[in-house]
Amino acid sequence: MSCTIRVPGSTSNLGPGFDVLGLALKIYLTVTVAEADKSEIECVGEGAQDLPRDASNLIMRAIAKSFERAGKAVPPLKLRVDNEIPLTRGLGSSGAATIAGLLCGNRLAQAGLDETTLITLATTMEGHPENAASSLLGGLTVNCVTNDQIISKRVEADPELLAVLLIPEAGVSTRAARRVLPATISYQHAVFNLQRCASLTRALIARDYSSLRALMQDKLHQPFRSNLVPHYADFEKCAYENGALGFCISGSGSTVLAFTRYDARALQDAMEKNAIEKSVPAKVRIVGVENEGAQFLETAAAIRSTA
Amino acid sequence: MSCTIRVPGSTSNLGPGFDVLGLALKIYLTVTVAEADKSEIECVGEGAQDLPRDASNLIMRAIAKSFERAGKAVPPLKLRVDNEIPLTRGLGSSGAATIAGLLCGNRLAQAGLDETTLITLATTMEGHPENAASSLLGGLTVNCVTNDQIISKRVEADPELLAVLLIPEAGVSTRAARRVLPATISYQHAVFNLQRCASLTRALIARDYSSLRALMQDKLHQPFRSNLVPHYADFEKCAYENGALGFCISGSGSTVLAFTRYDARALQDAMEKNAIEKSVPAKVRIVGVENEGAQFLETAAAIRSTA
Repeated sequence: MSCTIRVPGSTSNLGPGFDVLGLALKIYLTVTVAEADKSEIECVGEGAQDLPRDASNLIMRAIAKSFERAGKAVPPLKLRVDNEIPLTRGLGSSGAATIAGLLCGNRLAQAGLDETTLITLATTMEGHPENAASSLLGGLTVNCVTNDQIISKRVEADPELLAVLLIPEAGVSTRAARRVLPATISYQHAVFNLQRCASLTRALIARDYSSLRALMQDKLHQPFRSNLVPHYADFEKCAYENGALGFCISGSGSTVLAFTRYDARALQDAMEKNAIEKSVPAKVRIVGVENEGAQFLETAAAIRSTA
Repeated sequence: MSCTIRVPGSTSNLGPGFDVLGLALKIYLTVTVAEADKSEIECVGEGAQDLPRDASNLIMRAIAKSFERAGKAVPPLKLRVDNEIPLTRGLGSSGAATIAGLLCGNRLAQAGLDETTLITLATTMEGHPENAASSLLGGLTVNCVTNDQIISKRVEADPELLAVLLIPEAGVSTRAARRVLPATISYQHAVFNLQRCASLTRALIARDYSSLRALMQDKLHQPFRSNLVPHYADFEKCAYENGALGFCISGSGSTVLAFTRYDARALQDAMEKNAIEKSVPAKVRIVGVENEGAQFLETAAAIRSTA
């Protein structure tokens, strides 16, 4: 038995929406899992050199989780991983890997896990729901963790919205990015984010970008993390001077993201030039918003075998 | 010259949306302003005994603000105030009064103030935008205060949503209710509210009440203010046991609010009985959501004078 799944990466936080908002992007992790005589992991693409090839591999751990839920032992599996999502750059590579593993495990073990359970399991593994939820559901997700459930709701995102991603060569670990956050914040800053996060949610639902720049301001995490992103303030200034609708750190960095609906190429060029001027080795990519979530792909081989 | 305006009251905060969310309600303040030989204020209805009859009257102060913006002196004015909105109960009476005064002043002084300016002026007078914005625009408003602008956006509210209001005889001053709030809060509590406020905003826009109870939980103000509302926990328990979809303090209290779309009368009866058992003198009212904002009423006299 085998299956192939394609899972989008995602950006999260979007400025004020720390641990709340996720948005799926048109960059993908594709995984084929097949029962085999012995376990084997083959990786191509982003992070191929760094990913563990044993049971500690995140996709394997997520597959094991689904088998565990089905009360079944994991058989030897052959994984083929083809990954476009850069690791440790705040683009949801681990959320995508977790969802890919859980879904493939769910299918192979016939575990019958529903969306809510899948997101709950992913949140247990990830510590926060928004990347995994966006990878599973696609579009914009609005997320809430309670003691007994994860409430992740999908909103159809504006298909004309483009993300211009400045992806530095150097990554930031999510753990390091969480360590710089304080234990308490001022009441005013909490209200500051509350107003912007709710207003941004409404604006993205309504596709009303009239105040996006103001609504993407944040006091909860970016002031602490922007030190981890070299020249953050310069990149922000450059993006707004070149027509960006909004700008933020993607996830916990190191990628920074500029939204646009218009001349993305000019914005890309300006940000590329800016990165060179500041001697920050980086790629700048234009990536669309993905409204489809994780999808099983029927390969020609699979179609043949069922024919 | 004269005019008559009808302005809805409002509830605000809705649990996690402190200083963010407002919702107009079908309870009204009606004000007629006419140029006269000498200033005079006549009040009937809620708070009629307590409202000042001189220039310190809030409606008069708001009228004066519009005249000031037009660069004109305020002529002697006769005000007739007919108020259904209980004062100091968290139902937006001062926001409604401010909007009533600003709009009448705007018309009489021909100040030409637009919506954004009106909300900005009201926020300067009130300290927060959500009640005034809801009184002006109607429906649900999502609000954000920045250094140079107030961003208040209206969303059409579900016309079938009903608020069951338990309005205690004893009021709470907004100033007292703000004094009990702390200067700092934990990072976790800020994220707790952020997740719920954004998720609640999406739920109200989508009219999806499946998780409303969970999404209306709050750590930012209600834990500190519920002491100001006698038997808050009992009322909450009673409301949920009798079919409420959500429950919160209205504004800064003392009113508590239960949302329903179904048998509001049974919920009203249960909350009334609960108030009597707990010896809390209170009225319990069923009030609809108002999607119309402030409206000038053309009186028969006005129609005659223009005929």
